[in-house]
Amino acid sequence: MIDVYELAGADPALRFSPYCWRIRMALAHKGLDARFIPWRFSDRAALPGAPANNRVPVMVDGKVTLADSTAIAFDLEARYSNAPSLFGGPGGEAHARFIIAWADLVLIPAILPLVAADIFASLAPKDQAYFRQTREKRLGCTLEEARGKRMALLPGLQAALAPLRAVVKDHAFLGGEEPSYADYAVFGAFQWARCVSDFALLPPDDPIGAWRETMLDLFEGQARAARRAC
Amino acid sequence: MIDVYELAGADPALRFSPYCWRIRMALAHKGLDARFIPWRFSDRAALPGAPANNRVPVMVDGKVTLADSTAIAFDLEARYSNAPSLFGGPGGEAHARFIIAWADLVLIPAILPLVAADIFASLAPKDQAYFRQTREKRLGCTLEEARGKRMALLPGLQAALAPLRAVVKDHAFLGGEEPSYADYAVFGAFQWARCVSDFALLPPDDPIGAWRETMLDLFEGQARAARRAC
Repeated sequence: MIDVYELAGADPALRFSPYCWRIRMALAHKGLDARFIPWRFSDRAALPGAPANNRVPVMVDGKVTLADSTAIAFDLEARYSNAPSLFGGPGGEAHARFIIAWADLVLIPAILPLVAADIFASLAPKDQAYFRQTREKRLGCTLEEARGKRMALLPGLQAALAPLRAVVKDHAFLGGEEPSYADYAVFGAFQWARCVSDFALLPPDDPIGAWRETMLDLFEGQARAARRAC
Repeated sequence: MIDVYELAGADPALRFSPYCWRIRMALAHKGLDARFIPWRFSDRAALPGAPANNRVPVMVDGKVTLADSTAIAFDLEARYSNAPSLFGGPGGEAHARFIIAWADLVLIPAILPLVAADIFASLAPKDQAYFRQTREKRLGCTLEEARGKRMALLPGLQAALAPLRAVVKDHAFLGGEEPSYADYAVFGAFQWARCVSDFALLPPDDPIGAWRETMLDLFEGQARAARRAC
């Protein structure tokens, strides 16, 4: 059995980390069962393998212990090579690195200020001080100030989504006819927002919305059925 | 023999279009010879196949006449499948679409204001009025005003390059160990700027600079040897 340590909210069933969602989707894509173990920012000692950066997801699969969602995805692709491919070959692996970097460095930072206050509200009380301190430093303002600027920041997010919109307007998935890890890397950020916030990131007619609905339906609606913050 | 119609400057040997450079690199990657035929914005009747958008590159290869650099790249990959792959398999083809869209919708628009006045100065006089009219509309200011804002706009370009920087910091190419069409799609924008302008887009220590040098060296230094505007 594969164990995956995931960030949890005050409700231990609330799992919203964008990086953890990448791996949930990747495991479902590979048809692999896993136990998803809740972890909180303040639980650092609980992570196996003492990864240097104290971040989730951490995967334990037999003798393999890995932190970092990208490393986990490439490892699953290599070790479970008979299961459906996450990348569609060597070019797909290489090019996915760019899409992952875009999700990490453009998409997630553009969504963070829009939902940071909602994440805070969903966290276990013992995690809230850590989250406020680290995220306010990253945002350059308080969580509440960021929330107050949501409507002003939204056009910037929607403009930054242009490359994603251009692809999913004409193709079912970033992976082409079938979803790939690139889809999961990007979808993780939308699912992160969806699990903690009702704030609408997309206008109703955005083609990205239709792609997101399709992603929510994959694997018997795994992402759609996820617990959401109250 | 393959014919490729390319945008030319006042000097007919000056070929600077980012989309045409994608195809120059792709043809060299495939080991295919071609004739590169100069075309100018004001020469619309000269393009074969009357493509609806009157844009270059246009490729004529036997019975195949194609406009649009992306369509040409996918066509070369399909018809010259025994030559080195441009995409590295089906996942590489699918994921390349995102990187091409990023180059088209983020990178080229971020570079345009920095070099638009230099492009204007490199054009055949009969092309200059068309270029000024269309690009000033796109820029929302005059070519000279855009040039005056270059230093103020440069940090925005350098920030937008974050996903490219993250990949080439640790990998030789966007294609992995070997260059792929994704590299050519992105490199075309840098070569466009380089052919017409001395303005430095990157700080000296940017890992993207080392990648760009490697791209200039490919195929016996084809891009490095290109004619530059006087």
